[in-house]
Amino acid sequence: MGSSVADLPHPFDPLSLAEIETAITTVKKAHGDVFFNVVALHEPRKAEMTAWLAAPETAPRPKRVADLAVIAPGGKVYDALVTLDEPKIIKWELLDGEQPIITMEELQLVEHIVRSDPKVIEQCILSGVPEGEMEKVFCDPWTIGYDERYGSSVRLQQAFMYYRPNIDDCQYTFPLDFCPIYAADKKEIIAIDIPKVRRPLSKAPPINYHPAAVEAQGGHRKDLTPINVTQPEGVSFQVKGREIEWQNWKFHIGFSYREGIVLNNITFNDKGNVRPIFFRLSLAEMVVPYGNPEHPHQRKHALDQGEYGAGYMANSLSLGCDCKGSIHYLDAHFPTQAGGVRTIKNAICIHEEDSGILFKHTDFRDDSVIVTRGRKLIVQQIFTAANYEYVVAWVFHQDGTIQPEIKLTGILNTYAMDPEEDTHGWGTQVYPGVNAHNHQHLFCLRIDPNVDGPDNTVFMTDAVPSEAPVGSPENFYGNGFYAKRTKLATTGEAMTQYNGATSRTWDICNTSKLHPYSKKPSSYKLVSREVPGLLPKEGSLVWKRAAFARHAVHVTKYRDDQLWPAGRHVPQTSGEPSKGITEWIGDGSESVDNTDIVLWHTFGLTHFPAPEDFPIMPAEPMTLLLRPRHFFASNPVMDVPPSYSSTPSQLLANGSGVLDAADKISKLAFPNGNGANGASCCSTNGATNGN
Amino acid sequence: MGSSVADLPHPFDPLSLAEIETAITTVKKAHGDVFFNVVALHEPRKAEMTAWLAAPETAPRPKRVADLAVIAPGGKVYDALVTLDEPKIIKWELLDGEQPIITMEELQLVEHIVRSDPKVIEQCILSGVPEGEMEKVFCDPWTIGYDERYGSSVRLQQAFMYYRPNIDDCQYTFPLDFCPIYAADKKEIIAIDIPKVRRPLSKAPPINYHPAAVEAQGGHRKDLTPINVTQPEGVSFQVKGREIEWQNWKFHIGFSYREGIVLNNITFNDKGNVRPIFFRLSLAEMVVPYGNPEHPHQRKHALDQGEYGAGYMANSLSLGCDCKGSIHYLDAHFPTQAGGVRTIKNAICIHEEDSGILFKHTDFRDDSVIVTRGRKLIVQQIFTAANYEYVVAWVFHQDGTIQPEIKLTGILNTYAMDPEEDTHGWGTQVYPGVNAHNHQHLFCLRIDPNVDGPDNTVFMTDAVPSEAPVGSPENFYGNGFYAKRTKLATTGEAMTQYNGATSRTWDICNTSKLHPYSKKPSSYKLVSREVPGLLPKEGSLVWKRAAFARHAVHVTKYRDDQLWPAGRHVPQTSGEPSKGITEWIGDGSESVDNTDIVLWHTFGLTHFPAPEDFPIMPAEPMTLLLRPRHFFASNPVMDVPPSYSSTPSQLLANGSGVLDAADKISKLAFPNGNGANGASCCSTNGATNGN
Ligand SMILES: [Co+2]
Ligand SMILES: [Co+2]
Repeated sequence: MGSSVADLPHPFDPLSLAEIETAITTVKKAHGDVFFNVVALHEPRKAEMTAWLAAPETAPRPKRVADLAVIAPGGKVYDALVTLDEPKIIKWELLDGEQPIITMEELQLVEHIVRSDPKVIEQCILSGVPEGEMEKVFCDPWTIGYDERYGSSVRLQQAFMYYRPNIDDCQYTFPLDFCPIYAADKKEIIAIDIPKVRRPLSKAPPINYHPAAVEAQGGHRKDLTPINVTQPEGVSFQVKGREIEWQNWKFHIGFSYREGIVLNNITFNDKGNVRPIFFRLSLAEMVVPYGNPEHPHQRKHALDQGEYGAGYMANSLSLGCDCKGSIHYLDAHFPTQAGGVRTIKNAICIHEEDSGILFKHTDFRDDSVIVTRGRKLIVQQIFTAANYEYVVAWVFHQDGTIQPEIKLTGILNTYAMDPEEDTHGWGTQVYPGVNAHNHQHLFCLRIDPNVDGPDNTVFMTDAVPSEAPVGSPENFYGNGFYAKRTKLATTGEAMTQYNGATSRTWDICNTSKLHPYSKKPSSYKLVSREVPGLLPKEGSLVWKRAAFARHAVHVTKYRDDQLWPAGRHVPQTSGEPSKGITEWIGDGSESVDNTDIVLWHTFGLTHFPAPEDFPIMPAEPMTLLLRPRHFFASNPVMDVPPSYSSTPSQLLANGSGVLDAADKISKLAFPNGNGANGASCCSTNGATNGN
Repeated sequence: MGSSVADLPHPFDPLSLAEIETAITTVKKAHGDVFFNVVALHEPRKAEMTAWLAAPETAPRPKRVADLAVIAPGGKVYDALVTLDEPKIIKWELLDGEQPIITMEELQLVEHIVRSDPKVIEQCILSGVPEGEMEKVFCDPWTIGYDERYGSSVRLQQAFMYYRPNIDDCQYTFPLDFCPIYAADKKEIIAIDIPKVRRPLSKAPPINYHPAAVEAQGGHRKDLTPINVTQPEGVSFQVKGREIEWQNWKFHIGFSYREGIVLNNITFNDKGNVRPIFFRLSLAEMVVPYGNPEHPHQRKHALDQGEYGAGYMANSLSLGCDCKGSIHYLDAHFPTQAGGVRTIKNAICIHEEDSGILFKHTDFRDDSVIVTRGRKLIVQQIFTAANYEYVVAWVFHQDGTIQPEIKLTGILNTYAMDPEEDTHGWGTQVYPGVNAHNHQHLFCLRIDPNVDGPDNTVFMTDAVPSEAPVGSPENFYGNGFYAKRTKLATTGEAMTQYNGATSRTWDICNTSKLHPYSKKPSSYKLVSREVPGLLPKEGSLVWKRAAFARHAVHVTKYRDDQLWPAGRHVPQTSGEPSKGITEWIGDGSESVDNTDIVLWHTFGLTHFPAPEDFPIMPAEPMTLLLRPRHFFASNPVMDVPPSYSSTPSQLLANGSGVLDAADKISKLAFPNGNGANGASCCSTNGATNGN
C-alpha cells in the first residue's frame, strides 16, 4: 500500500468509505448482486491488538478486515469476512434460518406496499379511513420479533398502522387496530392480524407539537432569554483521528452499526503512569418489552440494537440544536443495501461542559476555603427507533468517573382504543382513543474491563448491618455496618440481581494490585440505581430472546466476537435455544476469577405512560456511574486549578497570597436590583454583627 | 405601623434583621441577658395562611411572630414566642431536659478550652504531640448526640481531636485517638474518652490540596480553557422580594436556621389556571450514622439539621466560584447568642442553566424533525458541617418536574489508626494512619403536598408481572405487566420501605380530580432511587433517635409546627421515647386518606470511604424527582420555542417555512480541523449515496 503509517486507519477505526467500497466490490465480483445488510469493521483480535497497542512501532499492525452479512436472491443469508489490505473473501458462510439486521431501507419499503395491498385497504376502510385516502395511512415497520406461526426462515416485518388526517399531523394520535405482516423476499403482505374486538379510527381532534399547531393554541412562550456558552480560547481536548485526549483520559471513539458509540482502550494518565481501565465500552443490546398480553402485542419487544442498529438509526447532529458550545463532530459511513455507501454527517458530537463544584471545603474556624469547579467531557449520539428517540451520552469526569447517561424522548408507541374502553391496567389512555402500553426500556452495557491489566475479578458488594445483635460486645450500640463483598468466581455465580435495600454495587477488581493504604484491590465500581427486573415472566418470549435482561449482571470470560448478548443475528430468533450470553455462560462452571472477563449490566426503566408523555415526551434521563475506588493513591483532581483558595496562614497575613481565580464573566442577575449583593469572591462568610 | 402593605414582609419571609432585633430586645427587657440560640420565623398557621393566599386583599394578613429558644444562666432552656407587630412575649415555657440547637458560636468556643485543659494536654503529649505545641491541636466539636452516662440535662459537646504539623496542613490527616467531653454551662472539659488500644499520632507526611502543596507536587494542570456562560439579554426569571416566577412556576423562597432553603406555595400556571402543587418543601432533617461499633464512635451520628442547622451552617456564596452565569442571591439573617444579628451574605444563589434536549423527534420517512432545548432553574445553598460540605440544589424543570439534588464534598471524618492495624471492615485506611469509618448520609425530604388542593392521598406503586402464568389465556406469552397501586390509607400503612426490584414509587394523588383521558388521579410521583435502608439495627441508638430513617416513606396528617421529624430540640435526645415523627404517627390508625397530609421521604447513600475521597472528596451527587403524572392534560412544554422544526409539508415545499432558531453562538471546536463538518442545522440526516 502506498500510504504512510500515519495515514493508515487506526485498527479500531470503523471502516472508511473507501474500505466499505472495497469490501462491497470484492463480494460483488465473486457473488454478483446481493443485498449488503452489514459491511462493518471486523474488530481486531484482542491478542493481536493488545500486542500492537503495547508496541505500535514493532508489533505487527492488526490487519483491516470487513465483516459482512448479505442477503442473496431467494433470501439466502451469508456471513462473510473480507480482508481489505489485499481484498479477498476469507469467509463465506451460508446461514440456516438466521436473519440479519433490518436496514433503514428495508423499513422504508414497507409503507408503500402496505398502502397498495387490497386487504390492508379493506381493513383501513373498515376502521374508518375514508376511501381513497391511503396516502394518509402510515406504518411503522418493525421486525416481527418472533412469531411461532412463521418461524425464522422467511424474512418478515410487522407494520404498526396509523392515520394522519392532515399531512403534518402526528400519526401516533390515530392508531389503527390491525397489523399487517410483510415478507421481504416477496415484498408483499402475507397476513393481517385482526383483533376480535374492533376499535374504529379515533375522531378526536389532532394534537400536534409543530409550530403552526402551537401558534393556534396561543403561540410559543416569549419569556426565555438566551444562554450563551462559549470557549474563546478553544476546547480543552485534543483529537487525532478518532483518538481523544482530555484531562488525563485517552481513548478511541469507534462507531458500530449495532452499538453506535464504541469506546476502546480507555486509559488514564495517573501522574505520568498511563493506566488501562477499560478495553472496550458500549451499549451492546437493548430490549423494549411491552406489557399488554393480548395477541399480537407480545411481538412488541424491540431489541433495537440487534434488530435495527443504534448506528444505522443515528441522527445527524447539528450545532446549536442538539449540541451547544464548542463542538467536535465525527461522521459515520454505512453500506446501502444495493452496495453504495451512505454517510451520516455528525453522527457523534463531542464537547465539554462545566459540571459545577468539583470540590469545596471551608474551615469553620477561620473561613479558609478552597472551591474548585469541575468539567466534564461528553461524547454523544442520538438515534431514532421509529417512534422513540434515545440520546446516549458517555460522560467523562476529571476524577476518573465514567457516567453513561441515556435520555428518552420522542413519541410513545400507541394503539387504538375506544375512549370508554378499560385498558385493564396494561396501558394508559394518554389522549382520547390513544392507548399507550406499559413497557420497559432495558439496556445492556457491555464492559470489557482492563483495570490495571486484563485479568480482573468482579465482586458484589452489599451494605449490611453487623451480624452481632444490639447489646452484644461486638455491636453494643447496634450501629455497626460494613460492605459485604462476595466474589463472583464463575459465570454461574455471577448471574446476580440488583438489591436496592443493600445499595448493591459490583466492583471490577484487579486482585493482583492492592492499594498501598487501604490494602484493597484496585477497582472500578459499578454504581447503578435504575435496575428494574425483567417483568415478562420466566419462559416468556421476551425472557427467551433477551436472556441478558434476566439478571442485572452477568460475567463471562472474554472471547473475540462475543460482542452482542442477544446474538449476532437477532431478528426472528425464537430464544429456543437462547443465543448469545446464555451460550457464553454455558453450564455456569467457567471461572471468571482473575482472568480476562466481560461484565454485562442490564439497567433501564419501566415506563407506565401518562398524558404528560404525549404527543411528544419531555426527555426522561437515566444514568449510572463507573467510579474508581482504591485505584488512585488519593484524590486525583487536587491539581485542577481552584477558583478560589485561602489558607489559614494567608488569612492571618491579611489575605496575602490568597488565590482568586474566579470566573470574571459571571455576573449578578439584577446588578441594581433588590437583594443582590456583589460580595467579593469567597472573601469571608460574610458574618457580621448587628450590634 | 407606618409602612404600606407593599413594604410589609411576606408572611413566609424569614425574620428580617430588624424583626430579629425586635424579638431580642423584647425578651431582654423581660428576662435580662440570656443566650439566643433561635430567633426565627414562627411560621404562619396554615389555615390563616391559606385564607390569606386565596384573598390577600380581604383576608387578614397572618401576623409576624418570632419563635425563640433561649438559654438562661444555669442552663435553663426556654421556648418562647414574641409577636412582632406589637412586640409582646406570648409564650415563655421552661423546658425540662431538652437542649436547643448548637450554634456556630458554641462550637467555636470549645477548641480554645480543649487546648488549655491539663488532662487534654496530657493526652496530647501521650499521643505524640510535641510539648508546647497545643496551638497545633484542633478539634471539631459535635454535640454529644446522646451518651447514657450523662443524659440530657447538662449541655455537652464531644471534641474530635486533630493535629496540624504546620498551620496550613489538613488536620484530618492527623487524628488523635481520644475524645474530650465539654460541658457548655461550666465551659470546661468534664471527661475524656480514651480507647483501650492507643494509636499514636501519625508520622506520615502531610497531604494537602492547597495551591502551595499542589505546586510542590508538580503544579496545577494547565490544559483547561475557560467555558463562559452569559445571558446578554438578562435572566428569564423575575423576583419580587422572595417570590420568584419562572416558566409558569411561582413560589416563595424562605430560609430557616434548621432546614436552610424552604420553598412555599409552589404553583404552576397551567394555561392561565394557577394550580397549587406543594404548600411547602424542604430538607427537614438528616442523620449521618457511622458504622464503627467501638465506643465512643456510636456517638458519631450527626443529625446535622436538628443539632447544628443547615441555615446556621450556610456558606456565603460567591460569583464565579460557587455559581456560574447570571446569578441572583438572597441573604440570611440570624441571631448571635449574645443578642446581636449576623448576616450571611449570598446564602442562596438562583440561576438558570441550559438542560440539554427537552424533546426531539425525527420522522424516519422524510427526516422532518423537531428539536427543542430545555432550561432549568436552580435554587442552591451550600452548608459546611464541620468536615463535610453539602451542596443542596432545588432544580425546577419546565415540564413540571422538581428535582432536589445533593452533592457531597468536603473532608471525611477521620480517626487514628496504626498503619498496620486491621480496620475489621468498619472503615478504610485512606492514607497512612487515617481510618475513615463507614457511614451513611440520610436526608429526610419533607413534602407538604397541595396537588390541586390540600386533600391528597399517597399510593405506593410497584411494577409487577401479571399474576397469570405463561400459557394461560390471560397471559399466554408471559409478557403482561402492570403498575400495582396500593393506597396508604393510615399513618401505619404508610410506613413503607423502598423496593428496587419493583422500581417502587410513591404517588401523591388528588383522588377528587381524575384526568379526563387516563381517568387516573392528578398526581405527583416521587421517583427516588438512592434509598438505602438505615443500617444501624432496630433498637440501636441511631434507630431510636432518628426514627424518620426507619422507613423510606412516612405519611402523617398535617398539623402546624410538625416540621422536623427528629423533634424540635434534637441535641441529646435519647430516643426513649423517640421524638417527632413517631409521636405524630401515633398508633398508626389515623387516616391519611384524602386529607391534608405530609409525606416524609428518607433517601441518601451509604459511604464506604476509599483513598480517592482523601484528603478532599470529589463531589458525589445524588438526586430524586417529583414528576407530574396525570396532572397536565398533555405535554406541558410544547410551547417552548424549538431550536429547529420542519414538517412533512414544509419539506415537500423545499423547506419553505422551516423554522431554524438554532443558537448561532455555538461553533465547531476545530473549524478547520480534521473531521469537523459544519452541516446546517438539522437540515437532513445527511444520508448521501456514495454511488
Ligand atoms: Co418509554
Ligand atoms: Co460521606
